[in-house]
Amino acid sequence: MSRLLQDAVSEFAKLPGIGRRTALRLAMHLLKMEPESVEQMTESIARFRRDIRHCELCNNLSDTARCPICSNPERDRTTICVVEQVGDLMSIENTRQYRGLYHVLGGVISPMQGVGPSDLKIDLLLEKVASGAVKEVILAISTSVEGETTLFYILNRLKQYPAVKVSTIARGIGFGDELEYVDELTITHALLNRREVE
Amino acid sequence: MSRLLQDAVSEFAKLPGIGRRTALRLAMHLLKMEPESVEQMTESIARFRRDIRHCELCNNLSDTARCPICSNPERDRTTICVVEQVGDLMSIENTRQYRGLYHVLGGVISPMQGVGPSDLKIDLLLEKVASGAVKEVILAISTSVEGETTLFYILNRLKQYPAVKVSTIARGIGFGDELEYVDELTITHALLNRREVE
Repeated sequence: MSRLLQDAVSEFAKLPGIGRRTALRLAMHLLKMEPESVEQMTESIARFRRDIRHCELCNNLSDTARCPICSNPERDRTTICVVEQVGDLMSIENTRQYRGLYHVLGGVISPMQGVGPSDLKIDLLLEKVASGAVKEVILAISTSVEGETTLFYILNRLKQYPAVKVSTIARGIGFGDELEYVDELTITHALLNRREVE
Repeated sequence: MSRLLQDAVSEFAKLPGIGRRTALRLAMHLLKMEPESVEQMTESIARFRRDIRHCELCNNLSDTARCPICSNPERDRTTICVVEQVGDLMSIENTRQYRGLYHVLGGVISPMQGVGPSDLKIDLLLEKVASGAVKEVILAISTSVEGETTLFYILNRLKQYPAVKVSTIARGIGFGDELEYVDELTITHALLNRREVE
């Protein structure tokens, strides 16, 4: 087998969810693409890894020192939504319902994986809150064991700022979810947090 | 959203079977990789597209003018196995049962997709046969409508060399296949070509 092909397949296969068979299919697909398109593809991917930065204010991925959200004068700077990762931020942005700022932790506390509070950008968050400009912190963190640990750790640290309102996003039955297939904890939450019909 | 991230996601999403969600996941994975590893990955992929060649004898993918199989003096040069694409060649090589040479057509005749006999490397195959060095041609072409068309076209052209033995690979029930789920044409073939137990 060609060394060049072998190398390309091995490199594709390093990506998550891509086995050798898929990697080979991808390599074969490259041959159907224009050489310039492949060049542009690999250059874009390399450039992303080389030049991408983390926003110095919120830790969001950014092309510049401050991300477009933090730089946008129209965003409400008194509200900060704390998320685990950039993908979560993007999901929230896609709803176009939130006009505040974000804070990207870059993970969750996980002693098993050697991730402690100092590995996350929690101090950066606390600094922002300490500055007095923040009125509300929304914790949009997942409900995994690690997520809950992180949530409680942050809640605890935020206690020293009683003037700041702290909230977590609502848990409940998702739109389109079949009750039959929803886990018991979610149903319990949804029942306890039921809303009266007006 | 970061321009750099957007570009990387768009480029990943051009690959077959990779939607925007998967592309985003792949981009995020790159951030966990060392910058040098990403550089190596993109360079390998670009180099493959840029430098890969087709063997001048059999049309196999190759790093050099002649592929390792055609260059190997231990291969039986009197037998040529005709396949549609390089992936088929690799599947046969993986069995380690075949010691002859190959001929990669690079596709099948498909009027619907504008692929005629002249777009495939059929003349190159005929030249080899005309040279008189070939004793057997094995046609390992798929049983699709286009495959059958291609098969009959090649069979027809090979008729002018009656000294050359021409064969097709056996059709039948695959090992591990459940008869219940095998299509009728394959079962018909398998019945007609039954072998007496010795």
